[in-house]
This record gives sequence, structure tokens and C-alpha cells, in this order.
Amino acid sequence: MTTSPLALGIDFGGTTIKMGVIDQSEIIDTAPPIATQDYDGPDALIEAMSRIIRDLRDRHPRIAAIGVGMPGFVNFEHGIVHNLTNVRGWFKIPLKQRLQEITQLPTVIENDANCMAYAEWKRGAGVGLKHLVAVTMGTGVGGGLIVNGQMVRGAQDGAGEIGQTSIDFEGRTGAYGNRGALEDYVGNNEISADARNRYEARGIYKNITDCSPAALAAAAHAGCEIAAQVWDDIARKLATSLMNCCWLLNPEAIVIGGGVAKAGDLIFVPLKRYLDEQLSGPFKDHLRLIPARFGSEAGMVGAATLALEEAGLA
Amino acid sequence: MTTSPLALGIDFGGTTIKMGVIDQSEIIDTAPPIATQDYDGPDALIEAMSRIIRDLRDRHPRIAAIGVGMPGFVNFEHGIVHNLTNVRGWFKIPLKQRLQEITQLPTVIENDANCMAYAEWKRGAGVGLKHLVAVTMGTGVGGGLIVNGQMVRGAQDGAGEIGQTSIDFEGRTGAYGNRGALEDYVGNNEISADARNRYEARGIYKNITDCSPAALAAAAHAGCEIAAQVWDDIARKLATSLMNCCWLLNPEAIVIGGGVAKAGDLIFVPLKRYLDEQLSGPFKDHLRLIPARFGSEAGMVGAATLALEEAGLA
Repeated sequence: MTTSPLALGIDFGGTTIKMGVIDQSEIIDTAPPIATQDYDGPDALIEAMSRIIRDLRDRHPRIAAIGVGMPGFVNFEHGIVHNLTNVRGWFKIPLKQRLQEITQLPTVIENDANCMAYAEWKRGAGVGLKHLVAVTMGTGVGGGLIVNGQMVRGAQDGAGEIGQTSIDFEGRTGAYGNRGALEDYVGNNEISADARNRYEARGIYKNITDCSPAALAAAAHAGCEIAAQVWDDIARKLATSLMNCCWLLNPEAIVIGGGVAKAGDLIFVPLKRYLDEQLSGPFKDHLRLIPARFGSEAGMVGAATLALEEAGLA
Repeated sequence: MTTSPLALGIDFGGTTIKMGVIDQSEIIDTAPPIATQDYDGPDALIEAMSRIIRDLRDRHPRIAAIGVGMPGFVNFEHGIVHNLTNVRGWFKIPLKQRLQEITQLPTVIENDANCMAYAEWKRGAGVGLKHLVAVTMGTGVGGGLIVNGQMVRGAQDGAGEIGQTSIDFEGRTGAYGNRGALEDYVGNNEISADARNRYEARGIYKNITDCSPAALAAAAHAGCEIAAQVWDDIARKLATSLMNCCWLLNPEAIVIGGGVAKAGDLIFVPLKRYLDEQLSGPFKDHLRLIPARFGSEAGMVGAATLALEEAGLA
């Protein structure tokens, strides 16, 4: 029976807050998720989280650190949440300090996409690598970077925003005024809208829900040519941003997670082809494209792993 | 009188090989440049370089290390030149070992754009920064990255190729099959061709030599509206790749060198505007755009500085 320390990983999402207890290799317990929007502001949410933390610690006294992945801008060093895109009232909240005062446990606050990258790097598809690009595909497109065996946070802890990088200098204007942002082409909603338009152009009328990435994967597997073209086009656009990451960072591997990655060969085969076509030898010959190990649990695992490492307990 | 060690910096270019002696802060002596294409292959060039190294050491016995910046792919750790784009016969040449055997001095071999970035980081516009993007604009567009206070070389020492990153996923096909490579829009020749076309569209016929970046800067300063538009367009395209670097790496500063940077406000003012328009607060509020300190001597200074650091003599 092991006595190694456990960590509590918290994946703070715009819809739900998920909490799990992680040992050196896996999630050993989870709490029922909190519905984020049922609580009015940070104080109520921190109180709700604290109650669940207390319950989980009663069941697992070896919990020795807490990690929280947040959907927005955070200051890692000081553990301050600057703002959240989809949750009201979170503005310059010293979440690390608040949780440490309540729990008396070492706590880290990190951006959620960085947590996913960290999970893949330390526990998943990218273990042992020094140069890694991790991308997670969903409603938004997030990312995290490992360079020289270290997480890249940058000057204001904003690094890794692959979804905001441009693939077209004259493209659509995105959320931050940025033209041609990758996310605005291969986010789940944009994929569905693009697919519906392609069907409609052939006289086939579909609900947007029938054009989800999962539905498009099933259709392509069943032989639908239009769905196959959608996947090829997603790969082409995604390849542009990933190629840019390769020219800039020359990584050993790219890990791809999230819903779109579940399409498997439909996305990975054309993606590999578009990258091979557009990179010179040293950049592509040893480059590995790897599906993420973790799914929706990546944020919890990454936050918890990071918490243990930062507390010197890993 | 100082007795600190000196280093020999060699900027190996496709046209000339420049060699200079560098102390802690500046170039104190240079040798007459070698005309690269006058020599047939690596053996003859290494011999010619060795003769000049001997002369410089006779004049400066304190030379304690040698650094060479190469215009192509190198393996930094082993000091091997994999290949050079514009110099024949250089294929898997163990240049570090060859020079060390001849000179008995510690030697480093590095990519030339990385040397320029290193010069700016250690001795120039980016001293003391932990997160820096350096770009050098010329016939090609090169770059070097500092992340977490370290040079980024990547898995095969290929990192920093900003000029090969795409600004248009459906753009022109570049040297490596990459579509929309920045270099193919804002390299000197492309700038001149674009300017000539713009003049021609207004019924003004110019020689390509009258459309050099220097000539276009003079024209814009003299009030030429077409030249001003060319500069705005260069800034817009360059901003796309630099914005992508910001979203990915969240640097403290971007240093821009090379001929285009000499246009000053003509390029820096619109560049700042395009970046501000397309980045969110944390990425742009503290971002500094800085002209490079070094000009054509950047490669020598960077190679020499790197040589001293790697030899533990800096």
C-alpha cells in the first residue's frame, strides 16, 4: 500500500467545476461537479469549492496540494485570476491565496490549456520530451508549449494561445481583433457551420447538431464525401498553425486532444500530409503527431500534477 | 588595461566571410573579408579561414574562443554544418572539430540568425530579457527566440525560422512547399517587386533597383504616397507573423533588425498599430518593439559572445 502524497485537481470550466483526487498515475476519486453558473460570483464559488475540498480531504487525508485550471488569464506566480471569458465577476481574484488560507495546503493556479499540456507532458502522450506542442480542440482551440524541458508561460503568463494565431492575414476578424485566428476556422461551431454550408451547396439540408465533429466523423466513416472534405479542410487549416509552431520551435512532437482529435485517421492522416508537404527535412523527419492520452480529465490531472511538482512532492 | 579574454567571431555568409575580434562590449579588430565563392568547397575555405585566424591571434594573443555563424542548418551540440542553402559542397561538415583541431581553441557553430538574436540579447537591444523575439529582415527573413532566459534551438536546432511561418494558408508556395511564408511577402526582393507593380499600376515605370527598401524609405519620407502604402503593407504582413509569436510566446520585446528596420517610423509605427489592433491586453500592454542595436556586425558579435559563454569565459 502506497503512502505517496495525493493532489486535488480542479478543472474550473465555464459550465462545470470538476474536482478529482490524483495519485502518481491516475484519478482515484472524483466529486460531483459544481454547476458554475448556479453561483453568483467568486465568493459563492470559492465557498462551494471549499466544501467539496473538505469532503474529499476527509476521504483522502493524504491530499497534500491543490491545483486549479482556470479558463482565462491567470498570474501563475502569484495565483491571481485576472479575468475569465465566460464566468461573471472574476476580475483580479487572488484565488491561490484564498484557497491556501482556507485549506492550508500549497495551491497553484494555472491556465486550463496549460494544465492539459502539462498532463500530456508529465503523464500522457509526451512524457520525457523536451520540446512539445500540445493543442486541444473544442469550442475554442487552446494550447500549451514545452521548450527546453520547461513550460512556456511568457512575460504575462499568456503563452500558448495557438487558437488565436492567424492563418490568413486578410481573414475574419476574431475576438481580439486578430484577423484569421485558427479558432475561428476550426472551433467546433465553425466546423459545424462550414459543414452545413457545404451540404446545403449540394442541396442537402442539415441541422447544425447533425454537423457536430462527432457526426461528421461518423458520416465520413460511412463514406460521405462532403464530410471527408470537411475533415481534409480542418486538417489543412490546423496544419498551417502547427507548421508555424514547427518552424518557430522545432518540437519533437505535437499532441492533439479534444473532440476533433477523436476523429482519428480522418484528421491525423491529412494533417501529417499537409505538414510533410510544408516543412523541410529537419523539422519533419523526426516529428511525431500523437493523439492526446487524456480526454475531459486532462485539466484535473494536469492541475494536480503541477501542484505536486510545485510543492516539491512529485 | 583589461586582461579579459577575447573571442573571434566569424560571420560566414553566402557572399563574404567576415571575421572580427570582440571583447566584452565591442569589436576591436576585423580582418579583410573572404569572398566565399572564390573558394572551392569546405577544405579550401577552412584553410583560408585558418590563415586569417592565425593572423588575428598573432595580433591578439588573448583570443580564447571562436564562434561561427553559418547560413544554414547546423547541429549546435556537435558543431556539424548539415547543409548551406547558397554555398556549394557544405554537407555534414564537422566544422567545430576541424577548427578546434587547427586552432586548439574552444569553438561553437551556430545558425546565423540565432547569432544575431544572441548579439541583441546579450549585448544589444534585448539585454536582460527572459522572453524575446528577434527578427532580421533582408533577402530572407530570419529569427531567433529567447524563452525562459534561454536560446530556443528545438529538437534539431532548427527553431526560430520566422520567415518560413505562414501568413496565408492559401498563399504562394515557398521554398519548402510552405504556403504563404512571410519571407515570400516581405523579403527585400518581394518588397521591390511589389513596389514596382504598385508604381506601374499608376503608370509610373521604375527599375527594380529604384524600389529597394532604402529607396522606398527615401521616397516615403519625401511624401510619395505609393511608397508609404508599401511600408504600411510590409508592416501589416510582418505584424501577422509577429502577432503569432506573441500569442504563442508572450514575449517582453520584439527586436527588429536588417535593412527594412532602417526605415524607422515608416515600419515601426504601423507595425505597432497592427499589433495593438490584434492582441489582447496582457500580450500588448507591456510589449516593446525595439530596433536592433547591431547592423551587419550582429553575426560576428553574437557568434563571439556565444563562444565566450559556452567556454565559460564570459
